[in-house]
Amino acid sequence: MIQCLLSTVFRGRCGYPSDNKPFLRFSNHLESMKGIHILRSIMPKPFSENFLLRQLFDRESCTYTYLLADVKACEAILIDPVIELAERDANLVKDLGLNLKYAINTHMHADHITGTGKLKKLIPGCQSIISKAAGAKADIYVENKDEIKFGNFKLEVRSTPGHTNGCVSYVDHDQAVVFTGDTLLIRGCGRTDFQEGSPERLYNSVYQQIFSLPDHYTVYPAHDYKGFTASTVGEEKRYNPRLTKGKDEFTTIMNNLNLPYPKKIDESLPANKVCGLQDLPDHLKF
Amino acid sequence: MIQCLLSTVFRGRCGYPSDNKPFLRFSNHLESMKGIHILRSIMPKPFSENFLLRQLFDRESCTYTYLLADVKACEAILIDPVIELAERDANLVKDLGLNLKYAINTHMHADHITGTGKLKKLIPGCQSIISKAAGAKADIYVENKDEIKFGNFKLEVRSTPGHTNGCVSYVDHDQAVVFTGDTLLIRGCGRTDFQEGSPERLYNSVYQQIFSLPDHYTVYPAHDYKGFTASTVGEEKRYNPRLTKGKDEFTTIMNNLNLPYPKKIDESLPANKVCGLQDLPDHLKF
Repeated sequence: MIQCLLSTVFRGRCGYPSDNKPFLRFSNHLESMKGIHILRSIMPKPFSENFLLRQLFDRESCTYTYLLADVKACEAILIDPVIELAERDANLVKDLGLNLKYAINTHMHADHITGTGKLKKLIPGCQSIISKAAGAKADIYVENKDEIKFGNFKLEVRSTPGHTNGCVSYVDHDQAVVFTGDTLLIRGCGRTDFQEGSPERLYNSVYQQIFSLPDHYTVYPAHDYKGFTASTVGEEKRYNPRLTKGKDEFTTIMNNLNLPYPKKIDESLPANKVCGLQDLPDHLKF
Repeated sequence: MIQCLLSTVFRGRCGYPSDNKPFLRFSNHLESMKGIHILRSIMPKPFSENFLLRQLFDRESCTYTYLLADVKACEAILIDPVIELAERDANLVKDLGLNLKYAINTHMHADHITGTGKLKKLIPGCQSIISKAAGAKADIYVENKDEIKFGNFKLEVRSTPGHTNGCVSYVDHDQAVVFTGDTLLIRGCGRTDFQEGSPERLYNSVYQQIFSLPDHYTVYPAHDYKGFTASTVGEEKRYNPRLTKGKDEFTTIMNNLNLPYPKKIDESLPANKVCGLQDLPDHLKF
């Protein structure tokens, strides 16, 4: 901390320009000491040998899809694929010479139709996974503390209800990453005003299952609307504007968001109940 | 390769379901051996201790902005910030307790106004950087083979004209990453039909300055329109649909794209010529 502070105060002496406002800079820097402290705790650890992660984005629904692979075993999984982009994802899997073992959802989405059903058609042998509590069709149902294995790697299933009853987060402890679905977003969280949403349950889920992880765990959410791609447990514990509040205040905030009715919910839920395989709107039939 | 092949053929015996089409699967897999081969060469290397990278996105222009930092020295740089999101970027820098040393452009953008000028206002002491050949105003001008230092890390400047005359790519050899601007995009490349664009020059730039890097170097482009966030030199050498062609065919393709006139070019270029500081449209004045 002293080193950082000094390097700022003596910026002009260190070979790059000073703005001639050392005291202002010192004062500004004291304000951000919280930030300096955080840097020590949130540095990501290197991934295991043979572990590959690719983040993919859907601009329409702002959904992040994650490709994870053991490149030695050639086994891959996809988390939260989107039906309109299933071919993109399947092509990437093929380009990289991977076998797609599982197409997985963190929950039954209301804002887009899952790509898991289409991926099962595009890549025969791939199996779909969702939580038992989601109430949706899939090849495999998971519950709290289950493990999903691909090659030498595994994800721990953590039940994190609140946005929906069936929400789960997936944790890879070896890589120190957590895929939080809509439970925890970057500087935000999923809405709790439909699909059995509950602010109290979401709050408990985040504190018990996500904020209990070490600060340096990278947070990979199912969505971001402001252009952030990743965060860490440590940052969200300190800077999440909703979840740094007490539970009562959080509940009041969540109950007064007055968000519009999700525009795709009426076509998404029926399709997602059957893994994105049936009851598709005409333009998505395949 | 044999291991991957075997694990697929004997999939049913390995504990997860077979689709009972072993021969079809074997044949499909032979097709993707190109992919298996590629996996060996493109695995990213771990970042240096104290090196932090955050990728940020602008949904409007599909621009990627990159925050790079030496967290021990508390020094950060931003590559290709966007004016509308300069406050987001400044807040992230502050949250992480970093000093923003440089705000850098890969080239004079035509599709958005750079955030470098606004960041200089928001974070006094920050200096802007662009290539000398860009013909735009900045605090520091760089040329081929120059180095940009932040903390213990450095970027090598590589001149990669073609999309514009002043395009450069930035290479961090220690992290094995290259920020390619609009020169090389994921499975694509920047257009060459305005701002002194030249397909031949772009082709030479990619082959001489980017494809000459090792296959495992991660490619971080200035834009992506399909939701990819990163690629590698190895993948683009094998799968880029334009740049796997010969130079003549590439030139023909680029000269016949018939793309629409960039909608923001008339407001972007005058502002970007002066580092996004002057001649701003009314809604972006600050």
